[in-house]
Amino acid sequence: MKKQDNQIKWTRKDLLDLESLSKEEIELILTTAESFKEVSKRQIKKVPALRGKTLVNLFYEPSTRTRVSFEIAAKRLSLDVINISVETSSVRKGETLIDTGKNIEALKVDVIVVRHSSSGAAALLARHTNLSVVNAGDGWHEHPTQALLDIFTIKEKLHRIEGLNITIVGDIAHSRVARSNIWGLKKLGANVCVCAPEMLLPYEVEKFGVKVTTDLDEALKDADVVNVLRMQFERDIQSAFPNQLEYFKKYGITEERLKYAKKDIIVMHPGPINRGIEISSAVADGLNSVILEQVTNGIAVRMAVLFLVVSANEYLKR
Amino acid sequence: MKKQDNQIKWTRKDLLDLESLSKEEIELILTTAESFKEVSKRQIKKVPALRGKTLVNLFYEPSTRTRVSFEIAAKRLSLDVINISVETSSVRKGETLIDTGKNIEALKVDVIVVRHSSSGAAALLARHTNLSVVNAGDGWHEHPTQALLDIFTIKEKLHRIEGLNITIVGDIAHSRVARSNIWGLKKLGANVCVCAPEMLLPYEVEKFGVKVTTDLDEALKDADVVNVLRMQFERDIQSAFPNQLEYFKKYGITEERLKYAKKDIIVMHPGPINRGIEISSAVADGLNSVILEQVTNGIAVRMAVLFLVVSANEYLKR
Amino acid sequence: MKKQDNQIKWTRKDLLDLESLSKEEIELILTTAESFKEVSKRQIKKVPALRGKTLVNLFYEPSTRTRVSFEIAAKRLSLDVINISVETSSVRKGETLIDTGKNIEALKVDVIVVRHSSSGAAALLARHTNLSVVNAGDGWHEHPTQALLDIFTIKEKLHRIEGLNITIVGDIAHSRVARSNIWGLKKLGANVCVCAPEMLLPYEVEKFGVKVTTDLDEALKDADVVNVLRMQFERDIQSAFPNQLEYFKKYGITEERLKYAKKDIIVMHPGPINRGIEISSAVADGLNSVILEQVTNGIAVRMAVLFLVVSANEYLKR
Repeated sequence: MKKQDNQIKWTRKDLLDLESLSKEEIELILTTAESFKEVSKRQIKKVPALRGKTLVNLFYEPSTRTRVSFEIAAKRLSLDVINISVETSSVRKGETLIDTGKNIEALKVDVIVVRHSSSGAAALLARHTNLSVVNAGDGWHEHPTQALLDIFTIKEKLHRIEGLNITIVGDIAHSRVARSNIWGLKKLGANVCVCAPEMLLPYEVEKFGVKVTTDLDEALKDADVVNVLRMQFERDIQSAFPNQLEYFKKYGITEERLKYAKKDIIVMHPGPINRGIEISSAVADGLNSVILEQVTNGIAVRMAVLFLVVSANEYLKR
Repeated sequence: MKKQDNQIKWTRKDLLDLESLSKEEIELILTTAESFKEVSKRQIKKVPALRGKTLVNLFYEPSTRTRVSFEIAAKRLSLDVINISVETSSVRKGETLIDTGKNIEALKVDVIVVRHSSSGAAALLARHTNLSVVNAGDGWHEHPTQALLDIFTIKEKLHRIEGLNITIVGDIAHSRVARSNIWGLKKLGANVCVCAPEMLLPYEVEKFGVKVTTDLDEALKDADVVNVLRMQFERDIQSAFPNQLEYFKKYGITEERLKYAKKDIIVMHPGPINRGIEISSAVADGLNSVILEQVTNGIAVRMAVLFLVVSANEYLKR
Repeated sequence: MKKQDNQIKWTRKDLLDLESLSKEEIELILTTAESFKEVSKRQIKKVPALRGKTLVNLFYEPSTRTRVSFEIAAKRLSLDVINISVETSSVRKGETLIDTGKNIEALKVDVIVVRHSSSGAAALLARHTNLSVVNAGDGWHEHPTQALLDIFTIKEKLHRIEGLNITIVGDIAHSRVARSNIWGLKKLGANVCVCAPEMLLPYEVEKFGVKVTTDLDEALKDADVVNVLRMQFERDIQSAFPNQLEYFKKYGITEERLKYAKKDIIVMHPGPINRGIEISSAVADGLNSVILEQVTNGIAVRMAVLFLVVSANEYLKR
């Protein structure tokens, strides 16, 4: 099931971010994911790896995509899955996050997958419980499994990460996906470029150690990969960028635009895509797009993460 | 587990409607359902038929009854079940139905059960993905598994469909249940009569090849079966028929009314019933009612449908 | 798995309340729970006891805690679990509770766990179906599994119930937890004292056969256990007790207050706790608190209850 580098072993009970992981740890997750990818191709897409253990999906923000991906990954590992969404939870009754975590721990659950609007929520749960905690997105902080599946997909396509030019386009300022990608890609030796209108760049963006530009053509010129972020005009950027059409014209990824990029540039998107807002349909559905492969790889990567953190925690508890 | 007619084999990856099925295909589903019915009578109500496969319940309209029936049927086949309801889905974020389908396909799901307010939604998903798609109700178009369980129940009671007189009473115009019943019953040789106030009859109803009447007594006179549709006064017919009491008086199925019908007429209803609106409590709970048997048979029929489409699709993909 | 007293066997298909149970029946549940507690300590936290059977969680009031506890208990017994919450159910369409129950029965479900805002709802379902029914809280009436896990926890800590002084503090009038605790504890021979402001005591409280006081110091003086109820200021008692701060001052359980109680008094709370309203953080997290152990024991107690009622019902149906 899993191949392991003899040099490195996974010892963390949690996956909270990519910032604190070593290059070797990231590579171990990728290698483990490779071996799990085969499971979803079988007729019986299930292994008994974590049978008799329990996962709680604790979602304070709605996200069908991520919840379903973790739920399927868990079930393919034979985990029992309990879904808790904030709408029906006692959180409404004012329980603190730590109390919620401690209660879930008391139920002898093994691993919690948490999405929360506050940066640091996953780390808080991890610190205050002996549960394995997997961060499924916390505020603008990180969304490590998304970045891992992005990196897995790039590596599958281009057979390496080191030395690649990878451009991330969109609302960098408010994107945990961007942050996790930057951390992960840089650790593996990629050259990362972020591209966005001035107002959607994070404060002190230069500290991330990436190339920064507001010019999409410049950002695409030498890129091996472009990762297109979802624009959430319904949410938080209306004041920063009032016009969808305007955005599409300047930052939308279209066939026109890609003419000036490398022929075999890989186009990625974490989904769900806004056709005609940040990406054209022709590109989203085109030959350069690996968007649906990202979704497929999400299962393998999440199986790997769940398997590693739960196994490590079992060892730590002994 | 399954008995199969040697002449006919199931070859469709989807169940979208009854209109396009042959008599033989409908009979194959019924025969398969018969053999699955026994599973729910066991102490261990579970067979490993579809173990390690995944079903997604994708409901754009709320329906506990249908969702639960499919969920139980799936679990008795050892399928893993993922529930997605529109309230918490990325549909809210504007993803197209086809994109949602393609994403679910990318998760290596095997079968999707979809309910949608638009006619043709299930067919759209079926055409654009390699998933097995089961239509759990699309607009006013069809609700094939409901009709199949109705037909299964009639056949169980009366040992045939051919030559029976079957009356459907209620809001025919807006009923996918009525449409699927008409298609299925006619293919199996029943004489179908629809009965409703003028304004609740569909446009060009005569084209369905059924007897049409606005007179309930006439509709019941020679009927072997009466299938009573749920009136949804809360929804769409207030202007067409303003008064519940008036409706009950003219079209409600009561003991009084059944005096003039055959003694052993079978009374059916897809549920949930409105006592005192389209049916009296005495009839709903009476000896002629098979309403709860319909619910029981729904499990067997849905097990059969899931088993057939997933097995066929596995064969097709090879 | 289970140890059984040779003298007493469980013969009820339902668990509706503690009022109607005998001392021996309560003790049988506790003994069975003891043997199930070990399952949650295993690496593979699962036994095949109820494999191939189906449980429906039917929640007319939202309660993540109780739903999740039952769901985990069920899955550790290998039950298939179906969750129905009122928000998405056909109840909205006006189906009666009995019809809902009969429909679930027709799906060949084995056990229903029901929470409802009306006292007697669980009993109604139990009377009108052959399903096993477990009451997960009905109005102000009873919440028997909560009381059983409370009693289990006390017995685990103090090795007996008989002769203990047990104080319940809070909104006794509107608390099903209080009622179930009173019935259960009295049957097992404890001395129960209830303490609340006048307006939060039930009508004719003296008929419960408990000591009644409005003075917290008096209530705590000889107590071996204090069970602190959750104050639901958001709900029903604003007129009865307008001020949270005032309540905390007079009835909040604090370290100050416990100075005058027994050193090793056990502090319980059904959760979720309101820190600084009915209990201080120092006490909730302190050495006397067994609040999280209650949560852990809830799994074992619910496994025991589910196992006993389903097994009995299977025997009764034969």
